Amino acid sequence: MAEPLFERLCLIGVGLIGSSIARVARARGDIARAVVANAKTPATLQRVRELGIADEVEADPARAVRGADGVILCVPVGAYAPVMEAIAPHLAPGCVLSDVGSTKGSVLRDLLPLTPSTVQLVPAHPLAGTEHSGPDAGFAELFQGRYCILTPPPGADPVAVERIAELWRRCGSMVETMDAATHDKVLAIVSHLPHLIAFTICGTADDLAQETREAVLKYAASGFRDFTRIAASDVDMWRDIFLNNREAVLEMLARFTEDAQALGRAIRWGQAAFIEDRIARGRKIRRGLIERKQA
Amino acid sequence: MAEPLFERLCLIGVGLIGSSIARVARARGDIARAVVANAKTPATLQRVRELGIADEVEADPARAVRGADGVILCVPVGAYAPVMEAIAPHLAPGCVLSDVGSTKGSVLRDLLPLTPSTVQLVPAHPLAGTEHSGPDAGFAELFQGRYCILTPPPGADPVAVERIAELWRRCGSMVETMDAATHDKVLAIVSHLPHLIAFTICGTADDLAQETREAVLKYAASGFRDFTRIAASDVDMWRDIFLNNREAVLEMLARFTEDAQALGRAIRWGQAAFIEDRIARGRKIRRGLIERKQA
Repeated sequence: MAEPLFERLCLIGVGLIGSSIARVARARGDIARAVVANAKTPATLQRVRELGIADEVEADPARAVRGADGVILCVPVGAYAPVMEAIAPHLAPGCVLSDVGSTKGSVLRDLLPLTPSTVQLVPAHPLAGTEHSGPDAGFAELFQGRYCILTPPPGADPVAVERIAELWRRCGSMVETMDAATHDKVLAIVSHLPHLIAFTICGTADDLAQETREAVLKYAASGFRDFTRIAASDVDMWRDIFLNNREAVLEMLARFTEDAQALGRAIRWGQAAFIEDRIARGRKIRRGLIERKQA
Repeated sequence: MAEPLFERLCLIGVGLIGSSIARVARARGDIARAVVANAKTPATLQRVRELGIADEVEADPARAVRGADGVILCVPVGAYAPVMEAIAPHLAPGCVLSDVGSTKGSVLRDLLPLTPSTVQLVPAHPLAGTEHSGPDAGFAELFQGRYCILTPPPGADPVAVERIAELWRRCGSMVETMDAATHDKVLAIVSHLPHLIAFTICGTADDLAQETREAVLKYAASGFRDFTRIAASDVDMWRDIFLNNREAVLEMLARFTEDAQALGRAIRWGQAAFIEDRIARGRKIRRGLIERKQA
């Protein structure tokens, strides 16, 4: 077995993602010699103890990070600023600080100014998840075959970046690197806008007259159902994603709305050729996914 | 085995749906004593002959319907008016005329005025399909466990309605009945709007800069992928659906757009409670689907 990447890895937050990292670390043995878990509520801390997925469970984030050579924030991105205020003075020199958040510009904004010069910040975003949350929802295979995107800030230490990259490779992920702004734009269209649409169409259906609403649930297999799978996602996490990737999400929503209105106008005025072109483009993108085995 | 429901069943159009009906009739034997298939192109007619899924193949729709006690239109709804003009004078007295179109108000508009008084019109819409089309795409199990909605016009003969209902039950479907206007409103939200959104978001992604577009395909698993499955649907069929359920589709698009803009506005102004409420409603609808085993 390879040497553990970290002597003492501290997970701030032990929900779906954090508890899955803890489970991989436990299962493999070559990620960290010891895993320290910190969570906000006594109930979660107690549950992590019962599950036995961490070597130590610590209620105080400042104490949790002490002596850790790796710290990963696994809380909703909206909680980063207060968490960082609490832990920054206690981070050990040489420590690598990372996270798993879905928005990366906000991570640089919230963490970089408070990061001690002796600490290396290497943000990461594993593109993995389920509609479930909490420490019981995690599992060691969650990251297998999924992408993990690293967004190291300019000038980041290559050794620290490689440690985090290797951590995710050992979790079974394919590691990619890009700058935070590109990440946020790409995720806005592949993930954040689809979720915004999914939440919205569920609300639109929910506002219909009772009779129609019942029928929506009954006949959902006709397309609606595909849009609801991702609508079951965690409330706090998604509120924070929308608020922390505001500019990119609003830009993609504006583009999408213009395009939807243009298609609606073509429908109103019976412009068959325009409608056919839009449908054909959908098929083209779909074919692109099938060719890349992403379908 | 039960007596066949029809002596001579004529299918106008032998694509995914028409060829699947032909296959069920062949497999069961109790749907029609003979199946006559009509298609527009010589290539399709030849392919149907090669597949051996019909007893007779007839290029001329007027000749195809002669002597048939059952006729089912299986062409895109935009083709109904010209097809009906061609076949109406040749429909046998006592014949039951049905269809499989996804819009039902337009069926009454296009077929009822030309329906002879000796012919019973019983429109139907099997909620079944795949992203493939053409006579090779069909299969006998397509309708198993799926809903089929009948929209008989006021005053329809109950015996004729029951014959079509029984045909769909023998295809394995669960038969429901509603009026055409309700059908069109329900389908607009469960199927037509989701398809409109799916086609649109594919176009929005396709318009992005090359680099981002590549990334969309690469990271599509994060939500985008769910939206593209239904975007691979048939161009002619969907153009006709949008154009023939115009009012209901535009109404649902307008409601959806208002709701999306409201969520966008809440994101812009940081209204966390509003955003949380929208996400929570998505989860509620999703739970409703899971409870109904429609997820």
